[in-house]
Amino acid sequence: MDFLKGFTDEINSAIMNYLTEKEPAKLYDAVKYLPAAGGKRLRPIMAMLACEAAGGERRKAIPFGIALEITHTFTLIHDDIMDRDEERRGMPSVHKKFGEATAILAGDALFAKAFEIVTETESSSDAIKKLVKNLAVMSREICEGQEMDMSFEESDEVSEDDFLLMIEKKTAKMFEHAALGGAIISGADEEKQAALQNYGRNVGMAFQIWDDCLDVIGKGIGKPVGSDIREGKKTLIFIHAMRESDEKERLKEIYGKKDMTDDELNEVISILKRAGSIDYAKDMAMNFSKIARENLKELEESKAREMLEKIAIFAVEREK
Amino acid sequence: MDFLKGFTDEINSAIMNYLTEKEPAKLYDAVKYLPAAGGKRLRPIMAMLACEAAGGERRKAIPFGIALEITHTFTLIHDDIMDRDEERRGMPSVHKKFGEATAILAGDALFAKAFEIVTETESSSDAIKKLVKNLAVMSREICEGQEMDMSFEESDEVSEDDFLLMIEKKTAKMFEHAALGGAIISGADEEKQAALQNYGRNVGMAFQIWDDCLDVIGKGIGKPVGSDIREGKKTLIFIHAMRESDEKERLKEIYGKKDMTDDELNEVISILKRAGSIDYAKDMAMNFSKIARENLKELEESKAREMLEKIAIFAVEREK
Repeated sequence: MDFLKGFTDEINSAIMNYLTEKEPAKLYDAVKYLPAAGGKRLRPIMAMLACEAAGGERRKAIPFGIALEITHTFTLIHDDIMDRDEERRGMPSVHKKFGEATAILAGDALFAKAFEIVTETESSSDAIKKLVKNLAVMSREICEGQEMDMSFEESDEVSEDDFLLMIEKKTAKMFEHAALGGAIISGADEEKQAALQNYGRNVGMAFQIWDDCLDVIGKGIGKPVGSDIREGKKTLIFIHAMRESDEKERLKEIYGKKDMTDDELNEVISILKRAGSIDYAKDMAMNFSKIARENLKELEESKAREMLEKIAIFAVEREK
Repeated sequence: MDFLKGFTDEINSAIMNYLTEKEPAKLYDAVKYLPAAGGKRLRPIMAMLACEAAGGERRKAIPFGIALEITHTFTLIHDDIMDRDEERRGMPSVHKKFGEATAILAGDALFAKAFEIVTETESSSDAIKKLVKNLAVMSREICEGQEMDMSFEESDEVSEDDFLLMIEKKTAKMFEHAALGGAIISGADEEKQAALQNYGRNVGMAFQIWDDCLDVIGKGIGKPVGSDIREGKKTLIFIHAMRESDEKERLKEIYGKKDMTDDELNEVISILKRAGSIDYAKDMAMNFSKIARENLKELEESKAREMLEKIAIFAVEREK
């Protein structure tokens, strides 16, 4: 992702200018904790590039992009509370560091801040109204995705369709709205808006499915290889194997088993491989990436379009 | 509040039309649980009356009013989690009924929905942009108020200024924005907007301080008389007594004491009375109510203005 470093730096320095409140100190320390910790900033970058690729000035998409990044952060803070995750980006999670009550509030305050920032977009009031509505609907869909994800934990049978709907809501929608938002801010026509919207969603799907693949084949994505398997997470890979494998019974027995041994972990991976489930997920991720790149063909060639293509490729070539 | 019954019914039937989503069922059951349980709906009513009193059509303020009511509900859901309150309006609180994770999400989804609804206001995009920004800033201030309120619990010395700032943020701001929002939607000039904004804030202050008085003198406001005293809540009454009473030491000893006896509760109330603290709070509430009614004099006489006056009086005459 070296080709994006300049953008990442730009967002990293801009984001803290939107988070200048200080009192009550405990609340705002919690609010700034994750945004200050950096990150790839893919969502704002996508908004900026989409704006430019659609013919606009990319700097105009910065506030909206930051609003998305802040919304993303808010969902991470609340998800960590729900999932009892004590770590995030190698640091204690917000609720671990500031207590659960302040973590809930910090998430709420960030979410409010996101809408505040959108209203500062250098765009027509009509465009801002659209951006606000999209941000609101998207955020609600993220909640739906998280609720589905939690319900999958207690469910024996998760269908592939339900799984794909869940990741679309929980992850892909935000990429969809990053690209669509950039297009709206650029003032592009509806066709270009739709092309970029589709591009964003497809990239988001590719990213999430590839994440699941990396858990099995990768060098770790900030967590030990096989964590999904140890946690019994219903990934696309598992769902495929439970449908196609000849070794379903054994898989069900050891997948997500408490205190799984390394041998058992390797056995699960072997079963997933034999069922073709890892290849199935990889192919699907690559297919989403390919469609995303096709979506871009609605736009004229440009440096920004090229970078959006690279992001779609990066989504399924990265090793962490 | 009989004079408002027609309005309450109107809001009660309108609010559920804005909450029609169904899936995932657990999430949306939790989302609808409190809004369906009714309530006085004072915030939307204030928005409607302010709109009419400023020369607008009151029905146009309904979406914004409902957005405020839904935001209010979202803060109640999250506050109940933070405060470990297991009851709300005589029913199990949302986290008690649906679990904490879904309760956090339901709050988030309601908050998102509030912004979605604001964008549906029958008003210019410029006005909507203002309403969105105000709703966002207000919500962040409510978070600040809640954080201050929580920090008071652990603090030995809470100043009157800090207390008043806390209730302004946590409670009064929403009334302020109900009245201001109605004025913005009416298209009134800035003077009328400011008058109604001040009216709303002052009514909110009167309401909250009167609530604290009712805890000591009232017939209960949905909770047993004296609960603030038993919980050791730093109310205006307590803060005044800790400054003015000759019996500070004894008060400090028994206020908020674990397993407080009825005798001790009565002793606290006597100390508060002797220090003039209850009268002090009552006077302050009544003064806020009086200023609120003066704020209204910037507007022409009307039926709506009269009802706003009545609400300001009701704020400090109600017995529960």
